[in-house]
Amino acid sequence: MKRTLGTCYYPEHWPEEMWAADARRMADAGLTWVRIGEFAWSRLEPSPGDLQFEWLDRAIDVLGQAGLKIVLGTPTATPPRWLVARHPGMLALDADGRPRGFGSRRHYCFSHEAYREECDRIVQLFAKRYGGNRHVAAWQTDNEYGCHDTTLSYSAAACEAFREWLRERYGSIEALNRAWGNVFWSMEYGSFDDIDLPNLTVTEPNPSHALAFRRFSSDQVASFNRRQTDIIRTHSDAPIGHNFMGRITEFDHFKVGDDLDIATWDSYPLGFLEDRVGADEAHQRAFARQGDPDFQAFHHDLYRSVGKGRWWVMEQQPGPVNWAPYNPAPLPGMMRLWAWEAFAHGAEAVCYFRWRQAPFAQEQMHAGMLRPDNADAPALLEARQVAEELQDTPDVFIARSEIALIFDFDADFAWATQPHGAGLNYFQIVFDTYKALRKLGLSVDIIRAETRDFSSYKLVLAPGLIYMPQDLKSALSEADAHVVLGPRTAARTADMAIPVPLPPDMPGLDVTVSCVESVRPDMPMPLKGGGSFVGYREELEGSADIVLETEAGQPAAMRSGNLTYVGGLCDESASTRLFKNLCAEAGIPTMPLTGGVRCREAGDLRIWTNYGSEPAETPAGRIEAAGVLFEEL
Amino acid sequence: MKRTLGTCYYPEHWPEEMWAADARRMADAGLTWVRIGEFAWSRLEPSPGDLQFEWLDRAIDVLGQAGLKIVLGTPTATPPRWLVARHPGMLALDADGRPRGFGSRRHYCFSHEAYREECDRIVQLFAKRYGGNRHVAAWQTDNEYGCHDTTLSYSAAACEAFREWLRERYGSIEALNRAWGNVFWSMEYGSFDDIDLPNLTVTEPNPSHALAFRRFSSDQVASFNRRQTDIIRTHSDAPIGHNFMGRITEFDHFKVGDDLDIATWDSYPLGFLEDRVGADEAHQRAFARQGDPDFQAFHHDLYRSVGKGRWWVMEQQPGPVNWAPYNPAPLPGMMRLWAWEAFAHGAEAVCYFRWRQAPFAQEQMHAGMLRPDNADAPALLEARQVAEELQDTPDVFIARSEIALIFDFDADFAWATQPHGAGLNYFQIVFDTYKALRKLGLSVDIIRAETRDFSSYKLVLAPGLIYMPQDLKSALSEADAHVVLGPRTAARTADMAIPVPLPPDMPGLDVTVSCVESVRPDMPMPLKGGGSFVGYREELEGSADIVLETEAGQPAAMRSGNLTYVGGLCDESASTRLFKNLCAEAGIPTMPLTGGVRCREAGDLRIWTNYGSEPAETPAGRIEAAGVLFEEL
Amino acid sequence: MKRTLGTCYYPEHWPEEMWAADARRMADAGLTWVRIGEFAWSRLEPSPGDLQFEWLDRAIDVLGQAGLKIVLGTPTATPPRWLVARHPGMLALDADGRPRGFGSRRHYCFSHEAYREECDRIVQLFAKRYGGNRHVAAWQTDNEYGCHDTTLSYSAAACEAFREWLRERYGSIEALNRAWGNVFWSMEYGSFDDIDLPNLTVTEPNPSHALAFRRFSSDQVASFNRRQTDIIRTHSDAPIGHNFMGRITEFDHFKVGDDLDIATWDSYPLGFLEDRVGADEAHQRAFARQGDPDFQAFHHDLYRSVGKGRWWVMEQQPGPVNWAPYNPAPLPGMMRLWAWEAFAHGAEAVCYFRWRQAPFAQEQMHAGMLRPDNADAPALLEARQVAEELQDTPDVFIARSEIALIFDFDADFAWATQPHGAGLNYFQIVFDTYKALRKLGLSVDIIRAETRDFSSYKLVLAPGLIYMPQDLKSALSEADAHVVLGPRTAARTADMAIPVPLPPDMPGLDVTVSCVESVRPDMPMPLKGGGSFVGYREELEGSADIVLETEAGQPAAMRSGNLTYVGGLCDESASTRLFKNLCAEAGIPTMPLTGGVRCREAGDLRIWTNYGSEPAETPAGRIEAAGVLFEEL
Ligand SMILES: [Zn+2]
Ligand SMILES: [Zn+2]
Ligand SMILES: [Zn+2]
Repeated sequence: MKRTLGTCYYPEHWPEEMWAADARRMADAGLTWVRIGEFAWSRLEPSPGDLQFEWLDRAIDVLGQAGLKIVLGTPTATPPRWLVARHPGMLALDADGRPRGFGSRRHYCFSHEAYREECDRIVQLFAKRYGGNRHVAAWQTDNEYGCHDTTLSYSAAACEAFREWLRERYGSIEALNRAWGNVFWSMEYGSFDDIDLPNLTVTEPNPSHALAFRRFSSDQVASFNRRQTDIIRTHSDAPIGHNFMGRITEFDHFKVGDDLDIATWDSYPLGFLEDRVGADEAHQRAFARQGDPDFQAFHHDLYRSVGKGRWWVMEQQPGPVNWAPYNPAPLPGMMRLWAWEAFAHGAEAVCYFRWRQAPFAQEQMHAGMLRPDNADAPALLEARQVAEELQDTPDVFIARSEIALIFDFDADFAWATQPHGAGLNYFQIVFDTYKALRKLGLSVDIIRAETRDFSSYKLVLAPGLIYMPQDLKSALSEADAHVVLGPRTAARTADMAIPVPLPPDMPGLDVTVSCVESVRPDMPMPLKGGGSFVGYREELEGSADIVLETEAGQPAAMRSGNLTYVGGLCDESASTRLFKNLCAEAGIPTMPLTGGVRCREAGDLRIWTNYGSEPAETPAGRIEAAGVLFEEL
Repeated sequence: MKRTLGTCYYPEHWPEEMWAADARRMADAGLTWVRIGEFAWSRLEPSPGDLQFEWLDRAIDVLGQAGLKIVLGTPTATPPRWLVARHPGMLALDADGRPRGFGSRRHYCFSHEAYREECDRIVQLFAKRYGGNRHVAAWQTDNEYGCHDTTLSYSAAACEAFREWLRERYGSIEALNRAWGNVFWSMEYGSFDDIDLPNLTVTEPNPSHALAFRRFSSDQVASFNRRQTDIIRTHSDAPIGHNFMGRITEFDHFKVGDDLDIATWDSYPLGFLEDRVGADEAHQRAFARQGDPDFQAFHHDLYRSVGKGRWWVMEQQPGPVNWAPYNPAPLPGMMRLWAWEAFAHGAEAVCYFRWRQAPFAQEQMHAGMLRPDNADAPALLEARQVAEELQDTPDVFIARSEIALIFDFDADFAWATQPHGAGLNYFQIVFDTYKALRKLGLSVDIIRAETRDFSSYKLVLAPGLIYMPQDLKSALSEADAHVVLGPRTAARTADMAIPVPLPPDMPGLDVTVSCVESVRPDMPMPLKGGGSFVGYREELEGSADIVLETEAGQPAAMRSGNLTYVGGLCDESASTRLFKNLCAEAGIPTMPLTGGVRCREAGDLRIWTNYGSEPAETPAGRIEAAGVLFEEL
Repeated sequence: MKRTLGTCYYPEHWPEEMWAADARRMADAGLTWVRIGEFAWSRLEPSPGDLQFEWLDRAIDVLGQAGLKIVLGTPTATPPRWLVARHPGMLALDADGRPRGFGSRRHYCFSHEAYREECDRIVQLFAKRYGGNRHVAAWQTDNEYGCHDTTLSYSAAACEAFREWLRERYGSIEALNRAWGNVFWSMEYGSFDDIDLPNLTVTEPNPSHALAFRRFSSDQVASFNRRQTDIIRTHSDAPIGHNFMGRITEFDHFKVGDDLDIATWDSYPLGFLEDRVGADEAHQRAFARQGDPDFQAFHHDLYRSVGKGRWWVMEQQPGPVNWAPYNPAPLPGMMRLWAWEAFAHGAEAVCYFRWRQAPFAQEQMHAGMLRPDNADAPALLEARQVAEELQDTPDVFIARSEIALIFDFDADFAWATQPHGAGLNYFQIVFDTYKALRKLGLSVDIIRAETRDFSSYKLVLAPGLIYMPQDLKSALSEADAHVVLGPRTAARTADMAIPVPLPPDMPGLDVTVSCVESVRPDMPMPLKGGGSFVGYREELEGSADIVLETEAGQPAAMRSGNLTYVGGLCDESASTRLFKNLCAEAGIPTMPLTGGVRCREAGDLRIWTNYGSEPAETPAGRIEAAGVLFEEL
């Protein structure tokens, strides 16, 4: 399969007489894909039952005739105003109990059955009408589930569905009371109908309650999505995707991915650096026009896993965006670099969002490949260059690494429920691990916690995996790979209680966490030999070998055979030291990288990228600022 | 007309037997004006229809007999409790949907028709009873419109009135949908009755929607005020004013001013420095007991414009206030300095707020001219000094400058709707421009964006004027004056869309803004020759002359003939350089000032003020800390 | 009476077969007391009227048989879910009007009469059943009144009760309007039924209104508690206590204490340092694993006073807690040190919270004396050491000091109502005073503002006592002791107005505060001779002697005879200088202490503690980090 480019287009935003020229210009630029339809409900059904699909027929035809392949999106992220009037209860409520009203997008609660039925209806209309259309080569369900903090809803519909979900999970209220330890503070329920949502409690709710609500909310997203994929598949053979939003962890992307053929994600490197990477100010300044050097790569590897190998960037930042605290213009070259970063990680396609900047409404300041006045914007020129470069490059190649890093959305729910120390969060811990590996020149597979076969890996990292079922413990313990565990590994039961025996209770590893502590981040706990624990530390007991010690003489990491348990949060220096040693032992070569230079193996190539604002030297030669370098292996 | 002093007095707060002595003491101190009445509704109508105006008759008489002139305020900022009970819907709702209840002041929604009728009734009673009273020499409507964030209300009454306002503005819902680009995200409405207020949306609302709501809210203030002025004028020939509050920009003061004879404003230099000037901490420390050296001057020039030449300070800070985060005592001399600053800018009158410090209720810690125990407070002594000085000074003189600075409330609404970068706001941009000019020793006229005749000016500045109608573009282009535009000039249509051709699309100036970016404030973008853009920059194209460049070699300012376009936000150094050059070219002499020293031309005088806490040298001689110096020209 | 130790135990959390072993292990460790019952309502009455007290009978019996004495807690802090369903109006509302729902604890409004009756009923059941039980040696009412910000409720029940409270206090609405100055801003009420709670006003409410609501809310806690003590006393002779929470000042602990036999409090030194001591970051780092060296001592002295001499630590931190921003592990030795600090201040008993760490629900990460797997945790070992040490030490000894520091909850309400400067609060002012005294090696009695007999003291400190009745003024004026007043002494009437003559209006002291100011904390106002006022300063007039001056030459402290008035907030250096001089004059020896070393006289002993993380030298010898040293006097 050839690597391809594409864009996102809204024919309903432009006079019909512009469509053909737009289509020709896309094709001329070397684009293959055009995504349409995902926000068009009010134009397809301006009032209840008044269906107006002819314009969409024509748009698909015009685009298809120009040789473009269509990704058709279902419009369920933007229900029209009349639909909200008909179902006022469909609005989500926020944690303060306020309705999240009409006037932007994603104004629905995943649990509202009548809204789900409206979605069934409109998706059915789409699937029947276009399921056999030869130009429609892929589907997208909805748009960016969970964006704008929309996974968790505290509505009556959510409450009712939550009770039902609990009833199915626990069978009896006695079982639930027992599992949650509701005897504590007299929180015992007499029936499932007594259970409220865990917001607006006087002090924090029972973590078992809060975690169950997060799991339920995640499941609601998956089942909402599944209703769409089931309907589409009845009428179409084209692959189905969803465009996940970066750094959204409130629902399990793997579970949604189970119902998809392709995972796609929306990559806004500059916007993300400003509003969600979590870097310090010096780092934010250094990469303000380039984006964090590892954040995109991490997501690429994540969605390759979510898509079981098949994945795209569905929305690629094309210039300044409109929604971050600050919205700088990318350094020239970055729109090309980002695309190559994606292809280096195995992307099938990279689509720039959006074709032409809309002069109106919320995203009027979001750049496109064209300016509002229809002139070329920088993204078009860089995309054209990538399109030309793609002609001579190999097909899509799924790199597989010898290193696996487990990312588990359920663990993120548990850490969010109980961070223990201010600012601690699971995503950051996994991302920091990833960053340390990547700065050693390593390529990484991100895998889900349901994995049991680790035979293709030499090194497996599972930081912060707070709940670990017995068979995963066994599989890791028996793996040939080196396995790095901790902190908080298996620290909770499935219902968010502390297990007895105490964690990690890992077969083959005599280590017990006897006590844990969170510590102010300005009080690092130095380790012998360099580096520190920062923010979180565990007291370790047991007979396993001590492989890392604090300067105060406490065991910091312990090991038996292939299992290493790290009892704290390492800073970069400590991580690097630990990973370098394990790689050496496992026979994995490392190559320390500095500044903004990174690399990724992709089949016969090593693709170098320079996120720095100055040229840099690499083992493969000099690389320009915002440059890409192809090294043949 | 002689320059005069006055004070604000609440006869209802004190035993009637104190009134005569108070009146005598005011007159003895050299005061001319006394403002009364504006919070007295519950004493004038203790229960519905039970009118008790006799005490007010007597108070006016006692004060008038002492030779004082009365400013009579309508009491509509403080409706009594029984009135709220009768009209519960009159309360404003905040953006979170919470009612803003009884128990302080300004507890009403401008759009509530029944409350407007209650206001008609009480104002009618005032106007009829006192319209012919010889002591009532001026009127004040309500008190500090918009104070405590009360312009925007999200009540049902506001929603209903907003729909009506939109119906009148757009005629048909199709026209509104088109103007706002509601096709985006399927936000199209089927009828005006579908339109909600733009709060509590999931992500930000359509900027066209948000801006329309701000304009509507502004218009509601103007029409609320107009009902009072219409009634008063039927019964009285005395001039009518309103006391605007400093740094309130949520409604268009010019439009309210159109219905007034005199603009007055409330000046609290220390409180404002603490809570709204927006200065850094070093500046706040340096001027904590004096106030910002330019903030009052800016408002003086603004309200001279709002009042079409006639303006007062209605409330002058007399000592520590009660409402700022910190409430220091002014440096001795400042109560005199502030008054002279106002007279230097053409004030007809300066009234100290308030006569005697009230020992009870919310403002018990707000100083007065007298202490609660009736002893003289410092403000009385300094006011007495000013009164003596006034005897030998010329009459009120409206200085006119050769430099005009446009301030447009509508532009402020647009920037508030879409700042693009965190912290960017229109007021600050205009104020920074003003400050740079004033530190060059220049006097400035602040003018409204409706101005079309610029013939009396040599230099016109119009920073950040985000919407610019065609005839203003023409007028500026054809003016004899040098005109400084940008950034964001004409960057939006009247309905908050990006215009095509791209901005500024200025006749006689071939400059196009092809791309804009906001940038972290800790990443200044240096300019060749010194100074930087900070926070915001535009990419400029076109054939106009480049007059300023970034160190990276991008055009920063471009010029053709009299028009200069600046494509970014200048720091003080860059502004100063630019303005100095233009003044030189225009033949306007400049005189750089430092520290807290400022000056203002007023007829045959140049009045120097020293906001510093140490004495300073000026071209006109030495000036004491907190001192005033009169230089004859 | 021997000094004793104890713990908090929840038999309902554990299988009945574990109870006997637990009881034996407690007794073996040297514990005397075990507190039970206070969260067990849902197990005692799983559904309305279904009483299940037999398990509690057996638990008491098992524990008692092991030789332990029971403290029996009433379970009213955790009403079961069915009870909330029956009385939905019992929930408190927060200041934003949101209900504070079921799902944690303290989900009730103190003013809800039906809930009070449910409490009467369950307390009656407890008292009747166990009033004669020989093992039940003490009682506890409810749990931690006011914790989680639960004193102030804005519910309908609270509003109704507040109106009733006001009716009783003021008699007529005219009297209330007059007392509050409601003529200001037309806030006059026509009847008590017009009065709303002081939340959700447009700007701040009348301080008289806000203060009245705080006083009312405090009284509601006291009367809620009194209903329980009245019922218990009908059936039992055992002493009654309540476990106050540290740094909770929203209700008057002295008034609640009036109905108790013993005051107890819950001491979490590390959690408190992180979330409520208010220290700067360097101090927080220095004492992160030890707690603030004075915070516990302050509370010990406070509750000795609340308990009229009889007091306990009911919950002593045993290791990391779960609820602070960061939750570090204590330095080894601290669990012993904290206990000795309490005994040094006269505690009868110190009970560690809790016996065994619960693996489930909200406090699963709160350490216990045992780990969740039943192994000894560090607290058990240190408690055992204390138990052994206690065998050879003298009986409980109530040290009395020659120095008294007045702490007045009502003053805290007034400061909270009107801090005047951001961050100013009464608790901090009194605590800073205490700290300065303690760092001079002094022992302090904390006394209530109702005290009139000061004959046993040489030095009395009354900082910030904003309201001071005439007889207290007289008593202080006529005392033999040196008395230190100010700032803000007697600055308000009983109804929160400024008195005339101006404050402090102190017999025997010609000082008048003519003006007050709050100032940014980064602008200290230096005093001659060292030290500064920080944040707040008063202008002083009068003929008393000036004993402290600002560098600017203003009087800072003035004195006549035994009365010294300090017109500002002293930093530590200024306080220390002032107190040292007064102590010298009064013949009280001082002994400057540094770092984490402190001492306390306790009968024939001086007990030294070292909160530092390094050993230190004291006049009594070397003291280890986290160490305790006994010096015989
Ligand atoms: Zn998107
Ligand atoms: Zn005012
Ligand atoms: Zn507790």
